[in-house]
Amino acid sequence: MYHGPVINVTEVTETGSGSRGVIICIFLDLASLQESKMMRVMLVLAYMAMAFGFAPAAFRSVRTSRYSDVSMKLGADEKVIVIGVAADSGCGKSTFMRRLTKVFGGENVGPLGGGFEAGSWETNTLVSDKTTVICLDDYHANDRQGRKVSGLTALNLKEQNFDLMYEQIKALKEGKSIAKPIYNHVNGTLDTPETVEPTPIVIIEGLHPLADSKVRDLLDFTIYLDISDDIKFAWKIQRDMAERGWTLEQVKESIEQRKPDFSAYVAPQMEFSDVVISVLPSEISKEEVGKHLKVKCIQRTDKPGFSPAYICSPDATVSVTPNTDAVKVGPTCGVTLASYKSKYYGNDVQVTEMDGKLEDINDYVNVEKILSNTGSTTAGELANDMIKVGPNSPGSMDGTGLFQTLTAYKLKEFYDATVGNK
Amino acid sequence: MYHGPVINVTEVTETGSGSRGVIICIFLDLASLQESKMMRVMLVLAYMAMAFGFAPAAFRSVRTSRYSDVSMKLGADEKVIVIGVAADSGCGKSTFMRRLTKVFGGENVGPLGGGFEAGSWETNTLVSDKTTVICLDDYHANDRQGRKVSGLTALNLKEQNFDLMYEQIKALKEGKSIAKPIYNHVNGTLDTPETVEPTPIVIIEGLHPLADSKVRDLLDFTIYLDISDDIKFAWKIQRDMAERGWTLEQVKESIEQRKPDFSAYVAPQMEFSDVVISVLPSEISKEEVGKHLKVKCIQRTDKPGFSPAYICSPDATVSVTPNTDAVKVGPTCGVTLASYKSKYYGNDVQVTEMDGKLEDINDYVNVEKILSNTGSTTAGELANDMIKVGPNSPGSMDGTGLFQTLTAYKLKEFYDATVGNK
Repeated sequence: MYHGPVINVTEVTETGSGSRGVIICIFLDLASLQESKMMRVMLVLAYMAMAFGFAPAAFRSVRTSRYSDVSMKLGADEKVIVIGVAADSGCGKSTFMRRLTKVFGGENVGPLGGGFEAGSWETNTLVSDKTTVICLDDYHANDRQGRKVSGLTALNLKEQNFDLMYEQIKALKEGKSIAKPIYNHVNGTLDTPETVEPTPIVIIEGLHPLADSKVRDLLDFTIYLDISDDIKFAWKIQRDMAERGWTLEQVKESIEQRKPDFSAYVAPQMEFSDVVISVLPSEISKEEVGKHLKVKCIQRTDKPGFSPAYICSPDATVSVTPNTDAVKVGPTCGVTLASYKSKYYGNDVQVTEMDGKLEDINDYVNVEKILSNTGSTTAGELANDMIKVGPNSPGSMDGTGLFQTLTAYKLKEFYDATVGNK
Repeated sequence: MYHGPVINVTEVTETGSGSRGVIICIFLDLASLQESKMMRVMLVLAYMAMAFGFAPAAFRSVRTSRYSDVSMKLGADEKVIVIGVAADSGCGKSTFMRRLTKVFGGENVGPLGGGFEAGSWETNTLVSDKTTVICLDDYHANDRQGRKVSGLTALNLKEQNFDLMYEQIKALKEGKSIAKPIYNHVNGTLDTPETVEPTPIVIIEGLHPLADSKVRDLLDFTIYLDISDDIKFAWKIQRDMAERGWTLEQVKESIEQRKPDFSAYVAPQMEFSDVVISVLPSEISKEEVGKHLKVKCIQRTDKPGFSPAYICSPDATVSVTPNTDAVKVGPTCGVTLASYKSKYYGNDVQVTEMDGKLEDINDYVNVEKILSNTGSTTAGELANDMIKVGPNSPGSMDGTGLFQTLTAYKLKEFYDATVGNK
């Protein structure tokens, strides 16, 4: 629900004259659209406040900018790179989108619809100088009313219009503009389509970017944000009980209801992902499950244009516990990092992981020193990006923020390698 | 016993015109000088064979070279660097000396006395183009007969002539030649002194290079080769029972006899060492104690001109298990490396360690990639040095060889920093 157009604040660079193209796809979870309208409005406001708290400057400037202000024309013969990001809702996807698009540079980020001003329209699409983020909910086959008739959840593949998705992403890759439908998350209706122009980078995000083989074949890079059931449960309890007044039984029931379709239609996409960021319960925390995380960055080793980040040596199993003078930790959880080769759905992968939580965001400078092949072009670049965003961004003090930012760096590296920037 | 002049084959570089000076000191253990004369002769022959097996080319060329052939004149205003190496006998000291002196370059290595030819004399001193290795047994206060009168062992500080040691090392540091006594290991007598000229590097090796504070203050760098009692026992059993026909009781008795004086006069020098190479039983081996080793390289972090080698980050506790395709291992023992900061005799140290044994010496290329700040000037340099020496050199397949060679590299780096080469 919180992925309404206003909330998905995405910071991206100026295109300039020699701008390049990239597409990125992202998941949306519609199963949570069951609250009363009042609750929905309150939620939108709450998430807006969160977004303001996170990056007020960028967000505010976006509110007053208009689609027409954004220079996102694709250069002649310029490649469009499409990135698919599969992520469940309620998993910090908007933060991840911000981290992803941020590395492609620029400040001019905002919803395609232009916000709340006269002439603006409701949209799920985010645009910047260089990047377009399309929410795949816009390719729902039916509106909420239609799904009541079909009896299927929004997780079901039959509820997605993969043919249109394919046609339109293909068109964007060919440098053509499209008339993309809009799914209205508040009303659950399919609104009047909006024009989306191709940009050097297109991210498609939602529940099913990798589910359809025709669509998948269009993607240049694929990412899956995997939250383990334990963590989802812990987060959902916190959100739905504390913030929405649900009972524990209601939370459990909503999770159980959703599980079969999620397992059937969403989870299988992990196999097709170049990078999976997997969020698990911490193994070193003394607190209850969900308070501290262990995050794995699972990276394919056979992807052209992409070489995984690792610790110390890609040919070894490595475990690192920073000294507490280098990385300060709290009384109930330390910080450990690890790196090793493994198999994942039959594919060779390099896993780089972090368990625990930093106390001081400045210590990322020392964490970065431990990592190799991060895509940083200067020492401390990745750490400084995280420090600039600050400690209040969701996941910024643990492996979530680290590996989302790292993945963004590796994507930038992949983009440059693929379009021949380097 | 095996540190007779012929056995201590030390390979060292040419000095050239701008040659520099360095001194190195080394330990000798006289407690083993109890065998029959026949046994001693056999031992000398056995160790000669070992030495031949190890580096036949260098050794043979040495046999025909003479002291007068070796250009070891010290340049005007050239600094003499003195290195003290404390090491018990029977601990692979001659191999260590070879590794140490090798990094200073040159082929022209041999005993000062010149070997077995006419005009040569028995000596414990090794010379090369750049390095002189003085055996501190030459500074015994009494010959073997004299110790029978005093009732003291050769381990006892009172049996060392520290005043003469101090005077002569000081003279060498000042660029003056000395008339150094010779302790005859075969006869146990003090022979006619020999002339030793200063070279850029002087190594003093033996049981007590760091025991006397006056001598210690002359030393530019100090090293202690520490073999744990478990390993000493295992090695002594193998050597004395298998090769000398001793009973287990005899071996045990000889070790127990020696322990009090060793603890009182030798072990305390660990506190004053810039680097301690500590050899312990493997913790990952499935074989009996002594078959596989865990070797720690304990490095002071506060020594000017010296910065410790580490793994991944000097500010972390790091554990690394190389993949078996990168570092092949046998069925009973793997290979793991580690690195961490610690305290040692109240001093801050960086410990870098390796447990286990390589199966293929070429895999040192992958081991070297794991290590940072080794003193290698090109990638793979340290590994290639080890590969060139070959798998048959004592300790070359485990941490002994690795950290002896690494220490040699760090010494070279220290030498260059100290004399201002860099």
